[in-house]
This record gives sequence, structure tokens and C-alpha cells, in this order.
Amino acid sequence: MTFSPIMTNDLTAIIPAFAGGTLDRADQVRVDPVRLKEAMMRPSARLLKLDGLNPVLDEMGDLAWGPLYEASPDNDLLLLGMDGDTPCFAELSGAGSATSIPDPRLWQSLSMLSPDQAGIYATARSLVDWHARHGYCSNCGQITVSRKGGWSRSCVREEGGCGAEHFPRTDPVAIMLAECQGKILLGRQPRFPPKRFSALAGFIEPGESIEGGVARELWEEAGIKVRNVRYVASQPWPFPSSLMMACTSETDDPTLTLDEEEVEEAAWFSLDEVIAAMNGEPDALFIAPPPFAIAHDLLKYWINEQGG
Amino acid sequence: MTFSPIMTNDLTAIIPAFAGGTLDRADQVRVDPVRLKEAMMRPSARLLKLDGLNPVLDEMGDLAWGPLYEASPDNDLLLLGMDGDTPCFAELSGAGSATSIPDPRLWQSLSMLSPDQAGIYATARSLVDWHARHGYCSNCGQITVSRKGGWSRSCVREEGGCGAEHFPRTDPVAIMLAECQGKILLGRQPRFPPKRFSALAGFIEPGESIEGGVARELWEEAGIKVRNVRYVASQPWPFPSSLMMACTSETDDPTLTLDEEEVEEAAWFSLDEVIAAMNGEPDALFIAPPPFAIAHDLLKYWINEQGG
Repeated sequence: MTFSPIMTNDLTAIIPAFAGGTLDRADQVRVDPVRLKEAMMRPSARLLKLDGLNPVLDEMGDLAWGPLYEASPDNDLLLLGMDGDTPCFAELSGAGSATSIPDPRLWQSLSMLSPDQAGIYATARSLVDWHARHGYCSNCGQITVSRKGGWSRSCVREEGGCGAEHFPRTDPVAIMLAECQGKILLGRQPRFPPKRFSALAGFIEPGESIEGGVARELWEEAGIKVRNVRYVASQPWPFPSSLMMACTSETDDPTLTLDEEEVEEAAWFSLDEVIAAMNGEPDALFIAPPPFAIAHDLLKYWINEQGG
Repeated sequence: MTFSPIMTNDLTAIIPAFAGGTLDRADQVRVDPVRLKEAMMRPSARLLKLDGLNPVLDEMGDLAWGPLYEASPDNDLLLLGMDGDTPCFAELSGAGSATSIPDPRLWQSLSMLSPDQAGIYATARSLVDWHARHGYCSNCGQITVSRKGGWSRSCVREEGGCGAEHFPRTDPVAIMLAECQGKILLGRQPRFPPKRFSALAGFIEPGESIEGGVARELWEEAGIKVRNVRYVASQPWPFPSSLMMACTSETDDPTLTLDEEEVEEAAWFSLDEVIAAMNGEPDALFIAPPPFAIAHDLLKYWINEQGG
């Protein structure tokens, strides 16, 4: 899979996991019923294998694909995109997740996937899940149907609906470091595994900028006021469909007031302490976030910025 | 209105319109029915006046507020946040927008509002509109009700629903410049007023990073491949509920292949041509985007970067 609209000669760029998808999303095929049908009929067309929402890996640890005819005739198809001349689909199986916390067994599969594979999986997982939870029109309550190769759902006017068109949802989330006197703030959510600390995070709300959301979250969750909010990198996070935006910020006063519903523990960590955790040293003060989480890239970025 | 969790001593920061809201969003009040009720009962509690989804301005050109008792008893209330000790609400009136293109008369009101006022209005408009279009559960089709002071809607299990909780939606949108040989790419959407050119833009899709979305949009809409995608600033855009993320990028080949459904005309403009348009000169080649659009800030940023 070699298509990419982005020229990757920028050696300083951070490409977090899930952010490396290289299928041509082929929006001009999605919206054209004739071209979409033609893509489905192509003998090379292939189907991403999923186990519910989880990936199926082949013996090489890559995403497993089958022929398109393996899809159930009852399910709509999602056009993931084109791999050269090969149309790549996933099946809208109705699999949805009740929670945003994925199956712990999934983490191991994810750590085996290459960046472009993880990007394809992220797209498929978010969309299969979105369709499963959007069978009805939020505007009028009538049934919706998949349209545009799975990139929208329509409420059907001919069947008494209001005709509204609904698009897949992507929720922007800020994930951030605050720096104070050479140390950074990390915290634990109650659901984290033991000893894991990571960057604080929260959804951007309507009427907020990314920078405003970073400042609000740090105020709400940790009671600190920050300045110099800086964007670092972003990552799609398909649990179920977030866009993680990693930022740094600064403060002068390290006094913490925690919102213990959201953050059960938080502390300021020095460069040496962060390096020890990122290196997985046995006496490290905490366990760092896993490599496929953008918090990991953010900590690496911060270490580099310190000349560490 | 002076509360702000962000310290604003960063003189280089770009604060686009709508991004300057300074109400304390008071999430701990939203989620606590007792504290929420107490806020509603406070004699100082006030109600943002809206005309449908449009702002009502007082004689000073500020947002107009009334006492909370002016709200219809039939409507739920949205807690916009706290202005010091004053709880600020809007009324979930059922006003919704059929299109994402606002009433042209609205633009003049918007250009009169201060940044914090525009931020409050953006929050209110996005949420009132979201509630109007989410009266039904997308998962099961049953009726939903407002919860958490208007910051979520719940499908009611006791009335036969599935119990799903739905949160207000915010759609991340990339808006971007591409630079080639000292010129930048700007384009016209078919719905733009005559002579208006602006930065190209598009929604970030599930499974995409911001940087990936920028590259895909420029490829789809203009047929160019870019590198060095850089984030510049963000802005909430309440038509109906986008998060605009302004970026720059670079390319070596200025050859354009337009998607004429999305972009009816596009061209490369020099620094002098952009400055003339931003200054509103009568012989400028195009009309620049208005000051409350982040595309305006993005062009200003680019001019400054050129030392212009």
C-alpha cells in the first residue's frame, strides 16, 4: 500500500499510531453510485476481516483480508478506499461497542500492526461502530440507511422520515502536558492499569478552541492555570472515534487541586523520572503510556525538547 | 466577564473570533442536580436572549441578557457557565438550522461582538441547534431528554429506550494554506460571495490525523501533494458545530486539478496580492475572508511569517 497524498520527507514530523493510513479514500467513488458499484464488482475487490470490532491478523501479523463475496448479503459495505486498483471494503456487521474502553486483548494485536495497517483498522473500526449506533435518525426517530459507500446515513423521506443526512462522528480530544519548573504533570484515571500515569485529556466542547479546551481541562481536573498552549501532533483514536490532539503548556504554580472523579492521582515528574519510565526501567516511578497512544509520542517529544 | 483558565500573557498567540469565551463552564455544577437547581434558583441567574439561533444585541452591541424567569416553562435550560457568581443560561427553544450556511444578516452582528461575547454566543448557538436536531436516540429511535444542564441527552430506559447517553457533537475541520514558490493557494466555493477567495477546508474523517486530513483535502480538491503540514491555530465555528483547525503546508508543483463540485476556482497568490486583499484595496485581485473567520487569521499569520 503506497498511495499517500502527503510527502513524507519531513523528518521531524511525528506520525503516531493510527495516523499512517495510506489508502486513497477515493471520495469521488463513494459519492457516485455507478463508480461505487463498479468498484464492488471488480474481481480484485477485497474485504477486511474483523472479529466484531477487533482486527483479524494473518500469520505475518498483518490485517487479514478476504474476497468481497465473503461478506454477508444482509450487510452494507463500507468503501475504506483504493489500494492502487484494488477496492478495499469492510462489512457493516452491526458490531458496536457499549463502552469506549476496548478489550484488553486488543492491545497486543494493535502493537503488532504497522502504521498504515493501524490507520486502515482505525477507519474501519470507527465506522462499523458508528453505523451500529446510528440506525435511527436523531432528528425524527425514523430508520436510517447507509449511503455513499458507508460514509453517511440517510433518513428516508419516502418511508416517512425527515430526510436528514447524518455523517460519521469524530470527537476532538485534547491530551496535554503542563510544565512547571522543569517537571511535567501526569495523572492516573481510575480505570488505568496499576502504576500507569499518562497525560491528562478531555473532549473539546462546542464553543471552544483546542487551546481553550486544554486550559479548561487542566483547570477542571488539576486546578492549575496555564499559558503558552502549543499543539504538537494528532492521532485518530478509534475507541470509538476520537481525534487526539497532543499539546504542551506551561504554568508557574505547581499546586494541584484534583477532580478525583476524573483523576485519582497526579504528580509532577522530572526529566530523569520520565526517561526512566519511557525506558521501562524496573525502578521507574511509573509505567509510561503504550507506544500506540499519542501520550507516548508526546512524552518522547518533551524529552527531545529538553535535549534529553 | 473575567474568568479565564488560560493565562493570556502569550503575546504571540492567535485568538480567532469565537475562541475567546471566558465563562467558567462549571462542569461540576452541570453534573450535580442539586447544585444545578441551586444555580437556577439564584436571583442573579440570567438568560441569554436569542432570536431563533441568532444573537440579540443590546444598544451597546453586546449580547443581550434577561432574567431567567423569561424562559418558557416548556423549555429545558442550558447552563452556559458561571460569570463569577452569576449563573448564565440559554433556553433550549427547539430552534435548529436546516443548513450550515447562516443567515447573511448574522455576519454584521458577529462583527460587532467582542471575543468573549462571540465565544459565549458560539457555545449557545451550537448547543441549542444540537438539541433541536437530537430529540431521538440514534441507537434505538426512542425519545431523548436533556440532562446535565443541557450538556447531554439521555434515552430513557424507563420509557422503553436503550438508555444510551449522547453528547453534543463537535466536528473537526481542517482549513489550510499550501505554499509553492512563495505563493499560496486560495479557492472559491460555489456558495461564496463574488470575488471572495479563502483557504480550502474539509472535515477530518474517522481514522485520520489533522495532518493526514489536510493532505487528503488538498489532494482531493486541488490535486496537489503537500509536505510539512503545520498547525497554526483553532477556532470554534458554530454553523452548526465545527472546530476549525488552521494549518499551513508546502508543495513543489503548482499544477492544479480542481474538484469543481467543491472548488469552482483556485489560484496561487503572491504576498503583495494577499496584502492588497487583506487591506481591502479597491484593485485587489480578490476579497479576503472576513475577520471573524480563522482563514483571516491564517492569512495574517502567513503575511507575518513572510516578514510582510
